[in-house]
Amino acid sequence: MDPTTLLANLKPEAKNINTAMQEGIRAVQDGLLREVLEHSLFNGGKRVRPLLSVFCGRLCGCKDDALYNLAIAFEYLHVATLLHDDVIDHADQRRGKQTVNTIWGSTPAILAGDYLHARSMFLIGSLGGRQCLDIICRATAAMVEGEFLQMHNAGKGDLSATDYFKIIEGKTAVLIAAVCEIGAVFGRATAEQQEALRNYGSGLGQAFQVVDDLLDYLGDPANTGKAVGNDFIEGKTTLPLIHALGNAVPQERDRIHSLLGGPEGERRDHIATVRQLIKKYDGFGYAKQQARQLIDAATSELDIFTADSTAATKAILIGIADYVLTRKK
Amino acid sequence: MDPTTLLANLKPEAKNINTAMQEGIRAVQDGLLREVLEHSLFNGGKRVRPLLSVFCGRLCGCKDDALYNLAIAFEYLHVATLLHDDVIDHADQRRGKQTVNTIWGSTPAILAGDYLHARSMFLIGSLGGRQCLDIICRATAAMVEGEFLQMHNAGKGDLSATDYFKIIEGKTAVLIAAVCEIGAVFGRATAEQQEALRNYGSGLGQAFQVVDDLLDYLGDPANTGKAVGNDFIEGKTTLPLIHALGNAVPQERDRIHSLLGGPEGERRDHIATVRQLIKKYDGFGYAKQQARQLIDAATSELDIFTADSTAATKAILIGIADYVLTRKK
Repeated sequence: MDPTTLLANLKPEAKNINTAMQEGIRAVQDGLLREVLEHSLFNGGKRVRPLLSVFCGRLCGCKDDALYNLAIAFEYLHVATLLHDDVIDHADQRRGKQTVNTIWGSTPAILAGDYLHARSMFLIGSLGGRQCLDIICRATAAMVEGEFLQMHNAGKGDLSATDYFKIIEGKTAVLIAAVCEIGAVFGRATAEQQEALRNYGSGLGQAFQVVDDLLDYLGDPANTGKAVGNDFIEGKTTLPLIHALGNAVPQERDRIHSLLGGPEGERRDHIATVRQLIKKYDGFGYAKQQARQLIDAATSELDIFTADSTAATKAILIGIADYVLTRKK
Repeated sequence: MDPTTLLANLKPEAKNINTAMQEGIRAVQDGLLREVLEHSLFNGGKRVRPLLSVFCGRLCGCKDDALYNLAIAFEYLHVATLLHDDVIDHADQRRGKQTVNTIWGSTPAILAGDYLHARSMFLIGSLGGRQCLDIICRATAAMVEGEFLQMHNAGKGDLSATDYFKIIEGKTAVLIAAVCEIGAVFGRATAEQQEALRNYGSGLGQAFQVVDDLLDYLGDPANTGKAVGNDFIEGKTTLPLIHALGNAVPQERDRIHSLLGGPEGERRDHIATVRQLIKKYDGFGYAKQQARQLIDAATSELDIFTADSTAATKAILIGIADYVLTRKK
């Protein structure tokens, strides 16, 4: 499915998701809290998580429109994380807009995040029942553990590919997997279908993060909104560099290790060198190939869905997976 | 029930609660996260919330020891709030120990709070079911809305007693009410019993906060661990001052308003004056009387529990209510 057709298919569902969120916000009594929530929820987000949940639900035959109220829980959870992340990072911009912590301070940012978190758990628990609550709470716990793992490994030059995949699983894939699985559970999927959609989400999430880490080195800052090599500047070792380090000569490896152990400014000055080294050992090609394999494995999970009635939905989920690989931002 | 007997009755249950939390922490894989959780959960807290939940459950006839695993959810939620509060306030001490944000930074503090929050929702949803999840999520949302209300009213000299009670309801009472109600629901209480215990908790929580605000002016810093008049210094108007302002002459009122609108240092220098004014118009006596009335109303909610088999539990809940009034810290 080409990107234009995909977008045309996603648009009406994204609209339904936005409507459900607008209705949800209307129930908030406090004017400032409502304003903060509007600012952070309606910021041009692509609604990837709720969309995945909706299409996974539909793929399993769900016709109930309460699915949208379940799906927005994942956008709430995602935005709660962003609100807290921006406080942690003292970030002043997100998607070209000022962050909540910049406009209103860190108190409303943390509190609004807590509110969205509670609201999210409520929607999932009350609409999806105990099984869905179990899935999302395990995912949230794994996400926090993933963040801690990333913290431990910051500045480590000898991060293995195994550790890298463990980190991105916690950081991105666990939640995407939960989003897809919960959509399936709500759609009264069989155990086999549930597992397939969980695996689809996990592969998709991992590939998404690998591509994200590639774009960090290769993307156009005008598209990504981030400086080239930002991860390395922050001391994060991602897959392209891990692959290159695994093949580099000791002298090159030592150079990178000393940069990772040194001051940030020095890393900033040596981004071109690092990119050169990664290119030399085909780290970018390797990471691309890994992402391709993850996406292939993810889409092959959908093979068990053979009904004609859901073929269009299946094509959209495959389209989303392909888009993850080709996206430029 | 005298304080010594009360304490002797609470101790074994507090021990059961601590054991359940220790077991819960053991499941955490990440070593640092586990350390952060241990530091923040085992800090000499009195376990008021889980204890209330346990005794309310027992009062309704619950014999299931899974009650402890439900009860710890409320300590988790409370500690999650403290972790985030300490980040917001840049606090470096809590209960005479360094805060998590001081020792490990704000990232682990926010993340550990998020973890406890998710874990808490999971325990409540999975053990208590949809109704309990509904109660706690409404309470959490109300708490956040209460914090926003307090934010709007900071520095306001003309806060009404109605607004004050609205703030403390959100800040303290809503959660205590939910804790008691959920204990009841888990104990398969009748609708009447549930309502009675929710009201008991709400009155108890409000009285607790009124006494807290009294101790802020009248407590011994050696006991409370806080400077005298801390609330006023921070620009918060609490019940004793609200009552005094309602009876003061315009000149006195203007003086307080100008202090509240002025710099913090000036408020700090005038605490003795403010205390004097509150005393003059019996603001402390009035607040004490309000707390007494709230506690009387709360304990009278327990009148419907007449079974001999639960008389001891009922006496403990009355004992806790009385303790709230007489506590010095």
